[in-house]
Amino acid sequence: MPSEFDLIRQFFTRPAPGALLGVGDDAALMALAPGNELAVSTDMLVAGRHFLADADPYLLGHKALAVNLSDMAAMGATPRWATLSLALPAADEAWLRAFSQGFYALAERFHVDLVGGDTTRGPLNLCVTILGEVPAGLALRRDGARCGDEIWVTGSLGGAALGLRHLLGQEVLTEAEARDCLGHLHQPEPRVALGRALLGLATAAIDVSDGFLADLGHVLSRSGVGAEVNFDRLPAHPAVAARLPLDAGRQSLLAGGDDYDLCFTAPPVHADAVSAAAASLGLPVTRVGCLVAEAGLRLLAPDGSPMVWESCGYDHFA
Amino acid sequence: MPSEFDLIRQFFTRPAPGALLGVGDDAALMALAPGNELAVSTDMLVAGRHFLADADPYLLGHKALAVNLSDMAAMGATPRWATLSLALPAADEAWLRAFSQGFYALAERFHVDLVGGDTTRGPLNLCVTILGEVPAGLALRRDGARCGDEIWVTGSLGGAALGLRHLLGQEVLTEAEARDCLGHLHQPEPRVALGRALLGLATAAIDVSDGFLADLGHVLSRSGVGAEVNFDRLPAHPAVAARLPLDAGRQSLLAGGDDYDLCFTAPPVHADAVSAAAASLGLPVTRVGCLVAEAGLRLLAPDGSPMVWESCGYDHFA
Repeated sequence: MPSEFDLIRQFFTRPAPGALLGVGDDAALMALAPGNELAVSTDMLVAGRHFLADADPYLLGHKALAVNLSDMAAMGATPRWATLSLALPAADEAWLRAFSQGFYALAERFHVDLVGGDTTRGPLNLCVTILGEVPAGLALRRDGARCGDEIWVTGSLGGAALGLRHLLGQEVLTEAEARDCLGHLHQPEPRVALGRALLGLATAAIDVSDGFLADLGHVLSRSGVGAEVNFDRLPAHPAVAARLPLDAGRQSLLAGGDDYDLCFTAPPVHADAVSAAAASLGLPVTRVGCLVAEAGLRLLAPDGSPMVWESCGYDHFA
Repeated sequence: MPSEFDLIRQFFTRPAPGALLGVGDDAALMALAPGNELAVSTDMLVAGRHFLADADPYLLGHKALAVNLSDMAAMGATPRWATLSLALPAADEAWLRAFSQGFYALAERFHVDLVGGDTTRGPLNLCVTILGEVPAGLALRRDGARCGDEIWVTGSLGGAALGLRHLLGQEVLTEAEARDCLGHLHQPEPRVALGRALLGLATAAIDVSDGFLADLGHVLSRSGVGAEVNFDRLPAHPAVAARLPLDAGRQSLLAGGDDYDLCFTAPPVHADAVSAAAASLGLPVTRVGCLVAEAGLRLLAPDGSPMVWESCGYDHFA
């Protein structure tokens, strides 16, 4: 069995052109572009909790980085560098090769350098820390939303959750639906370019990882505002829309995690600019409601009457 | 059982005065001091591998951060911010309280802000990423050692390894020895102040985490030099020194990990300045050998003859 050091060298040591010093020292060294702040986020993915233990390692490599890139997108930050810590039950060369290929394929597409990490034996666990840059004072924080702002969502909602239900045998999807929903689940596309384009336009942003209602709720509580959301304007994934009369559809739409689309707020005066920025990126964006002074999140039926929904996101300790 | 969010808020949300935005958003935001580079390192600690599953959570909180602070020390960087990701088998309030107390006690002593993290259910796993600052161009890299430099070690070697042997029932220590060795094992003291004082004096540095021979070996291979080390000059921990005729003593001294003292190199012209810097911090430093052109690490007996030793450090996949 190759040693830890051989493994790391073999699979996770590629040049880091955006760093001063990459993998192989006590720490990596980087220079921040003048006028920028450093944005840092970290996510830990555990087998049996965030993914199935026999998950495709290539897709896992993609997802471990994608969920972190998505955090940068939600700040309007440009991801630059990442560290990766891996606990593995065994030093499985084929697994490591595929995982690193999935990780690097996404990293290279976003010009992100892997600059450090750790590898150890243990129950399968992936921990990525992402580092990015954002122009000073412009980051899209959760606490910047203001009464009167409109609420927007990128892409679609619920596809990943429906894909997971399919995987778990809780829902039967057509072949085309399954392919598409599993794509959302396994290979989410971080909305980095849009997040950056929203600097100066959006007042707050979050990525939909715990479920739309829960994540919007985080913005509301941090910003001290309430929201009215029009249920029928929510951009349900087509397979989700087809199931909206069913609980599975509504659950996926409102509380399904893992979509990694953005939910953001912007004053109405910036609506055209937001639409134009999204259009130039070929990314659909939808206005789904607005912020109000009265605390709480109200979901409105097409006739304007309140809908009852138990607000709940995914809780890793539930 | 409290939810994930309650847990995080309760134990890991203290003010982060050194950050622009701390825990609670998609990412933390920080400003780097002008003229500084960013230093980043990460370590993952797994139950049953790096610590016993029933380890004291307070000490674990200390150690999870200490090993990362030590990486900053080995770069000459000043640690500023950290993220902490935790996988826990259960949301154990007493465990979390003690762990967070151990973590914060050390963090506050070093003025390090916890700015982000993740908490999830899973086999016990701790992943800390540390972020620090170092004046541009001055970091103590592993590749800066030069032929003719002297090799130095701070503190003492082998105490942590002997403490672990004691814990595992492989060695019988006196009560005083055990207390001291277990202190080295559980509560290593990161040599941050000395690392910083060595900027401009040392040419390379590393912290002794895998074992003295292995870690010095990393410096040698990165710097393209060889070394001659005088066995009898190595600053063995007193309990280790008492066992040096035995294999347990030599093993602990040469290949025992987890000491987190620094091994560094400096040209002879800086020897007095190095000694003075260490003395002003009350930290013993010892010259143990010098760098030579011929590749490899040669261990010399008191009479100058070569000693045979199988160079091996701790390998997490061994």
